[in-house]
Amino acid sequence: MALGFADAGVLAFDVGGTDMKSGVVNAAGSVLALRRHKTPLDPDRPGEAILERIAELFADYSRQYPVGTFEAVGITVPGLVDEAHGIGIYSANLGWRNFPFRERAEEMLGMPVAFGHDVSSAGAAEMELGAAREFQDAMVMVVGTGIAAAIFTGGRAVSAGGFAGEIGHSMVPDPEGQGSVILESVGSAGAIAKRYVRLTGTPVDGAREVLDRALTGEPEALKIWNEAVEALAFSICQCVSILGTEAVVIGGGLSAAGEALLDPLRHAVDHALDFQRRPVIRAASLGQDAGMLGSALKARARLLEVRLP
Amino acid sequence: MALGFADAGVLAFDVGGTDMKSGVVNAAGSVLALRRHKTPLDPDRPGEAILERIAELFADYSRQYPVGTFEAVGITVPGLVDEAHGIGIYSANLGWRNFPFRERAEEMLGMPVAFGHDVSSAGAAEMELGAAREFQDAMVMVVGTGIAAAIFTGGRAVSAGGFAGEIGHSMVPDPEGQGSVILESVGSAGAIAKRYVRLTGTPVDGAREVLDRALTGEPEALKIWNEAVEALAFSICQCVSILGTEAVVIGGGLSAAGEALLDPLRHAVDHALDFQRRPVIRAASLGQDAGMLGSALKARARLLEVRLP
Repeated sequence: MALGFADAGVLAFDVGGTDMKSGVVNAAGSVLALRRHKTPLDPDRPGEAILERIAELFADYSRQYPVGTFEAVGITVPGLVDEAHGIGIYSANLGWRNFPFRERAEEMLGMPVAFGHDVSSAGAAEMELGAAREFQDAMVMVVGTGIAAAIFTGGRAVSAGGFAGEIGHSMVPDPEGQGSVILESVGSAGAIAKRYVRLTGTPVDGAREVLDRALTGEPEALKIWNEAVEALAFSICQCVSILGTEAVVIGGGLSAAGEALLDPLRHAVDHALDFQRRPVIRAASLGQDAGMLGSALKARARLLEVRLP
Repeated sequence: MALGFADAGVLAFDVGGTDMKSGVVNAAGSVLALRRHKTPLDPDRPGEAILERIAELFADYSRQYPVGTFEAVGITVPGLVDEAHGIGIYSANLGWRNFPFRERAEEMLGMPVAFGHDVSSAGAAEMELGAAREFQDAMVMVVGTGIAAAIFTGGRAVSAGGFAGEIGHSMVPDPEGQGSVILESVGSAGAIAKRYVRLTGTPVDGAREVLDRALTGEPEALKIWNEAVEALAFSICQCVSILGTEAVVIGGGLSAAGEALLDPLRHAVDHALDFQRRPVIRAASLGQDAGMLGSALKARARLLEVRLP
């Protein structure tokens, strides 16, 4: 399973909604020459604009490094992605629909290109190099403004044509009454801040401030924080019951809360499960670079795919 | 993926809690000489007693058929099963704990043996030969007295050491109030009958009679039936959101209800999903033989595994 970077460097891009990162990931797996850029936005040619910027950066890196320093390129983007076919199916923020990123990029750059989904790439990096690396059946859950997950069964990423991992849109009990709401509307960092403001009328600087207030014992903040934990635990238990998941790795902005999140989450999951296996629950270990490292891992895999018969 | 039975016959056993079936599944995939037997129950030697019965039947079939008619044996059992290691981890009804079925059977029979889980085997048969055969990402959900599922991602069965597929023990909203209960306690055939009796005080002959009463418009029966459908839909949507599942195949006793179950289930799932892919929802097509056919498929796969380097 583990590919590592045993014998080839790659050039990796992690394209976000407002910023993008680039870097050479060398044969030893180290990130060299990490650079940050604005993501170019062009409503009429959203995919083309990003590829043109990538081509410019590719030319810069090619001038800067000896030939052979990188032999493939990885591009990771948000939205709905068909990795198997290298297609950006849809991005609400960036605007493309069914754009053939991999094919166009390979034409422009003359090098094998892997095209990946941001959460799936971050998950792949945590599985191969990070907090999930000793597990075969794992979920890497990115909890930030929204919630999405990379799911692994038997050591393999589940893709389902790009439709897997939308756990943020699965239903959880509505803490405000009967019925169900989507996980993202209760358990995300965005929801924690929003629900606290709605409850108290007090503006806060994100979920972090709600947690700080909860840690001082403020009942409203505690209530919102605990409801988020319960919602996350509910969805984690769904995943465990269906897939027998051994490990849940929490990444994204909310994971900065560390044990203040993980400890109550472990208790809530333990309480909600019956005879099922208890998953290990831990924080992601690769931080902000997970997406770019995953992009690099996919570039490396693409290189092997192209090289092998 | 499809192995079929291209070049070898196998002897397949499907061991249930009270009865067991045996049959030769020939190279063309037809079941010959199907026989039914009582499952031998021995509280002190539960695994051994079953293997001894299997050895007797193996000897019978060996006398009856020319050498070479079958070249491997498949054994399928209920409970918690580690298929990869051929171990019966636990069966509440039959009584074993960590019994090394495959190793013991291979010693006794002198032939490659595959050891499988009943729901996983039925699921494998529906995937390769039955209602799910054109899909890669599917769930085969067996809804009877209890509920369990065989989960497939990218054409591969999810095992997680035997812990996958326990969707019957995942949580759904409690139809009788706030809070959550396990799917099995609302959506199974057993629960439908039990909940109807609890509600009305009228004894019924299983879920089938509750459905018959619902179809005549009896409000209490309709309520119980609809709550079962809503619970099943809730869990199906969890699976779809997490895995991007393309197809859900319903087997087990409740699937005999046909469109009276499937039609409202499709509507409930469609209503509950947002942008996620809508799964095809259909009845299992192999009926009572699914477990034995799956056992045969696994025997065939085991034969290839043993033959290949």
